[in-house]
Amino acid sequence: MKLKAKYIDMDTGIIIALLHDDDAREMGIREGDRVKVIHEGNTVTALANLSDTFVLRGQVGLLGSSFKFVGPEEDELIEVQIAPRPESIDYIRKKMDGLELSTTEIEVIIQDISSRSLSPIEMGAYVTALHIRGMNTRETADLTISMVKTGEVIKFDKGPIYDFHSIGGVPGNKITLIIVPIVAAAGCLIPKTSSRAISSACGTSDIVETFCNVELDAKKLKRITEEIGGVLAWGGALGLAPADDLIIKAEYPLGIDPHPQLLASVMSKKKAASADFLLMDIPMGDGTKIKTMDEAKSLARDFIALGEKLGIKVECAITYGGQPVGRAIGPALEAREAIQIMEGAKSPSSAIEKTVALAGLLLDMGGGYGGQQRARDILGSGKALEKFRQIVAAQGGKENITSDDIKIGEFAVDVLARRTGYVSVIKNRELVKIARAAGSPNSKGAGILLAKKAGMKVDAGEKIFTIHADNMDKLQTALKTAEKLEPVLVAGMVLETVPSFTRVEF
Amino acid sequence: MKLKAKYIDMDTGIIIALLHDDDAREMGIREGDRVKVIHEGNTVTALANLSDTFVLRGQVGLLGSSFKFVGPEEDELIEVQIAPRPESIDYIRKKMDGLELSTTEIEVIIQDISSRSLSPIEMGAYVTALHIRGMNTRETADLTISMVKTGEVIKFDKGPIYDFHSIGGVPGNKITLIIVPIVAAAGCLIPKTSSRAISSACGTSDIVETFCNVELDAKKLKRITEEIGGVLAWGGALGLAPADDLIIKAEYPLGIDPHPQLLASVMSKKKAASADFLLMDIPMGDGTKIKTMDEAKSLARDFIALGEKLGIKVECAITYGGQPVGRAIGPALEAREAIQIMEGAKSPSSAIEKTVALAGLLLDMGGGYGGQQRARDILGSGKALEKFRQIVAAQGGKENITSDDIKIGEFAVDVLARRTGYVSVIKNRELVKIARAAGSPNSKGAGILLAKKAGMKVDAGEKIFTIHADNMDKLQTALKTAEKLEPVLVAGMVLETVPSFTRVEF
Repeated sequence: MKLKAKYIDMDTGIIIALLHDDDAREMGIREGDRVKVIHEGNTVTALANLSDTFVLRGQVGLLGSSFKFVGPEEDELIEVQIAPRPESIDYIRKKMDGLELSTTEIEVIIQDISSRSLSPIEMGAYVTALHIRGMNTRETADLTISMVKTGEVIKFDKGPIYDFHSIGGVPGNKITLIIVPIVAAAGCLIPKTSSRAISSACGTSDIVETFCNVELDAKKLKRITEEIGGVLAWGGALGLAPADDLIIKAEYPLGIDPHPQLLASVMSKKKAASADFLLMDIPMGDGTKIKTMDEAKSLARDFIALGEKLGIKVECAITYGGQPVGRAIGPALEAREAIQIMEGAKSPSSAIEKTVALAGLLLDMGGGYGGQQRARDILGSGKALEKFRQIVAAQGGKENITSDDIKIGEFAVDVLARRTGYVSVIKNRELVKIARAAGSPNSKGAGILLAKKAGMKVDAGEKIFTIHADNMDKLQTALKTAEKLEPVLVAGMVLETVPSFTRVEF
Repeated sequence: MKLKAKYIDMDTGIIIALLHDDDAREMGIREGDRVKVIHEGNTVTALANLSDTFVLRGQVGLLGSSFKFVGPEEDELIEVQIAPRPESIDYIRKKMDGLELSTTEIEVIIQDISSRSLSPIEMGAYVTALHIRGMNTRETADLTISMVKTGEVIKFDKGPIYDFHSIGGVPGNKITLIIVPIVAAAGCLIPKTSSRAISSACGTSDIVETFCNVELDAKKLKRITEEIGGVLAWGGALGLAPADDLIIKAEYPLGIDPHPQLLASVMSKKKAASADFLLMDIPMGDGTKIKTMDEAKSLARDFIALGEKLGIKVECAITYGGQPVGRAIGPALEAREAIQIMEGAKSPSSAIEKTVALAGLLLDMGGGYGGQQRARDILGSGKALEKFRQIVAAQGGKENITSDDIKIGEFAVDVLARRTGYVSVIKNRELVKIARAAGSPNSKGAGILLAKKAGMKVDAGEKIFTIHADNMDKLQTALKTAEKLEPVLVAGMVLETVPSFTRVEF
C-alpha cells in the first residue's frame, strides 16, 4: 500500500512505523507486526504501531532517524508492506520451552538484537526466557562468540595478553589501578578495559578519569599496550560486543541478570580484546553480589569452563568482600589512595594485600611461581609507580602525577562513634548509597573515607568515617542518608576474623 | 529537576518522558526507570527514554495525550523526579522464579497492566513468565477476578444467565447465531457477547454485523436481554475486562497464549457479564487449536475447575473440528446459512446437529433433561426464527429478516475436482487463508461455500467449492491462493467416520 510519509520528531531507538488503524486493518496488520517501508531502493523493516489520532488514513509516520534513512520528502508516497516476523522469535520460543539452541539459532537472535530488529516486548521475552531456562556451556560459548561478532575485535601484534576482571559488588575496589602497572612493569601486556558505575559508588573508569582520559579508540589502546605494556581504558568507547548494552537495557528494568548473559557479557569483552590469561576477582560476603562460598565456586567454575571453550585461560580468586577494600570510596578518593599505595604507603593493608595477591596470581598464569613476591617487589621498588605514570602520560594525564594532584571534595563532614566498642559490621550497600547521595560517581570529589574498619576499636566520639562532596547541598543529603542508614555498627567485641582472599583450587 | 516541556506529536499508548542523556545522568535516571512529571497538581508517571538528539539539555519531551494531561504550555517549566518502579515487577520476578503469587500480588500486576504502568519490556516478561511457569487454579481464579475488576460489570435484574463460548479454531462455526435464539425462545436469558476475527476467517460479530448493529452498550445489552431473552453483541464495545486486550498485545508478537491467561481471558468476560451457566465448545482435530482428546479433556477440566472458583457452572462439549462446520465460511455466507437453517433448511446437517446438540446441553444445565429434543422442536417449529427476528430488530436490523436479505459476494468462481473419488481431507487452515485472501472478514460478501465435505463422493470436473468476493482483484488473489494450497484432497476411499460431538463426562 502506498502511504504518505509523515515525519515524527522523536526517536526511541526502536524503528517504528505509525499506521492508521483502518489502513492497518486493510493490510491485515496488527500492532507488533513488522512492515517493510520502501522508498527509492531504501528499505527499513519497522515495527507497526497503530493509531487513529496521530496519523491520518493514508499516512505512515516514521521517527527521526528512520525517516531520514528511508529518505522521502514530507507527504511523499512510500510503499508499506507487511513483512514476516524475525526468525529469532521462533528461537526465543524454543528457549521458553526449555530446549537447547543451536549455534546458528543463537547467532540469529544476537544479530537481530544487534540490528535492533526485536521489539521491547520480544527483548523482555528473551531475557526472561534466558533467566528462567538458562543455557549450557556450549550455548553460553556460542552466545559469547555471537556477541563478539556484533562489534570490534582488537588484535595485538605481540602477546600473550593478560587481563583482569572483578565482578564487582564491593565498594572501594580500586586495586585495578595498581594491578595493571605491576603486571605491565613485569613485562606483560595488560590492555585493561573497565566500566563506569551503574549502581555502584564508582567504577574503575570513573576513578581513572579523575586524572587522565579513558576514552581511547582501539588503535590507541593497541599502541599504548604494545609500547608501555598497560592501559586503563573505558570499555564503552571501544565498541566491543555492543549487543551487550542492548540486552542490559532489557534486563535492567526487570532487575534480572540471567546467568548465561552475565557470563557472556564479561567474556565477550575479554574475547574481543584478545585476552589469553584472565584473572577474575569474585568478591564474596554480606552486601556483595555473591553471598556464599558455594555460589562463588559455582560461578568460578562457570567462568573457567566458558574460558576453555573460548580459548581463554581463566583463574578465579574468591575474595573477601564483606566490607570495603581499603578506606576510600569515590572516584578521587580512590584514585588518591591507589597512588599513595604506589608511592609507598603501608596502609590500608586490605587494599595492598589484595592487590599484591591478585597481581601475583595473574603473573603466575603466564607460567612459573612466585608471582606474589614479584608483585610485592615491583610495588615496593617504585616500578609500579613509574609504569603507572607512563600509562597516565600516554592517556593524556599529567606527567609524573602524584597523589597530591588528585582533588578530593572540599566539603567534608566527619561521622563519629556514639559509643565505645569494636566495629562489628560495615554495610557495603549503605555506604554506596551515601557515596552516591554525596554525588559519586559523577561528582568526582565525592565519596567516603573510612577511619575505622571492621574489627577495629573505636572510642565514643571518635571519627568513624568522613563524607566528602563537591558542594554543600550534596554533603547535607549524604549526611542525612548516613544518619538514616547507620552503615557502621559498633559492638562490644570482635565477632570473627576472615582471611582477605582465598585461592580456589579445582 | 525543572525541565522545559516539549510536545511530541505522536503517541504509542505508552507514557514516555524523553530526557536528555546528561539531565538523566544528573538525576541518576537510566533508560527504563520511572519518572514523575508534575505540573500544577497534574502528575503522570512516565517511562524514561533517553536521547541526546530529540530533546535538548533542560527539556523533557512528552507524547501527545500525556502532554495534554499534564497540561503545560510549550517550553513551560515542569517538575521531573525519579519515581520508584512499579511493585508488580517484583511479583513478575516471583513468577519467573516459579513461585505462587498471592491474590494481592496478582491484583497489583493486573492493575499496573490496566493503568499502562508496565513498559513493553515488562509486559514481555510477564507473558513469558506466565507461559513458562503457569498458574494453579487459585491463581488463575484471582487473575480472572482481577481482570474483571479492570472494566465494566453487567448485572441483570432477572436470572439465571446462560452463556455459550466456542474456543474457536474451526471455520464455518456459525452455530452461535442459532443457539442464542433457541435458548432465548426456551425462556432463558442469554446475553451473548462475541469477538471479531483476529486470525480466523470470521468471528460471530463479523457475521452478525452483516444484518444488524453489534456495538451495543451495557445498558442496551441488559434491556434487550431482559425483554427478549437474547442478544448477539460485540464484546469489544462493552469494556469487559479490558486488561485482556493489553495482555493479548504482548502475547501476539511472541505467538504465545499462556494457559492461565487463555483461561482468564475467556472467563473474565463471562464473569463480567454475570454468567451462571456456561457451555464451552472445544473443537478438536486437525487444523484446530486442540489436536488430541487428552488435550481437549485437560482444557475442559481447567475451565470447569476455574468456573467452580468463580461461581459459574461450566460444561464443555468437545466437538469434531477436523473440517468446517456446515458449508459456508465468511460473514455473509455464514449469516445466510444460519438463517436458512432457522427457516427450515434440512442441511447442512453438521451445522444443524451441532447447534441442536449444544443448545440442548445448555438448556439442560438449568436443570432437567431432554434439552436436545426441546432445542430441535424450537428450531423445527419456527420459534427460533421468530426469536432471532426479534433480536435482529432490537439491534437495529431489518424487520422480519429472511436469508434472501443477505447479500453475498457477487464475484464468484467454482473450484472443480481434478479426479473422481471421495473427499478425504478438508484443510481448515488453508480454507481460512483462501477466505481471508478473498477479503473476509472485512469484505462482508467474501468467503467460501463448500459443495462437498469430507467423506462425500465427487466426480472429476464436479464442483468442490465456490469462492465469493466483493471485487475481481480479491477473487483472483483468492483463486491463486486456492491453487497453491490445495485445501481439499480427493482420495479413493473413505478413511474413517467420526461422531460429530462428544459429551465429556467426569
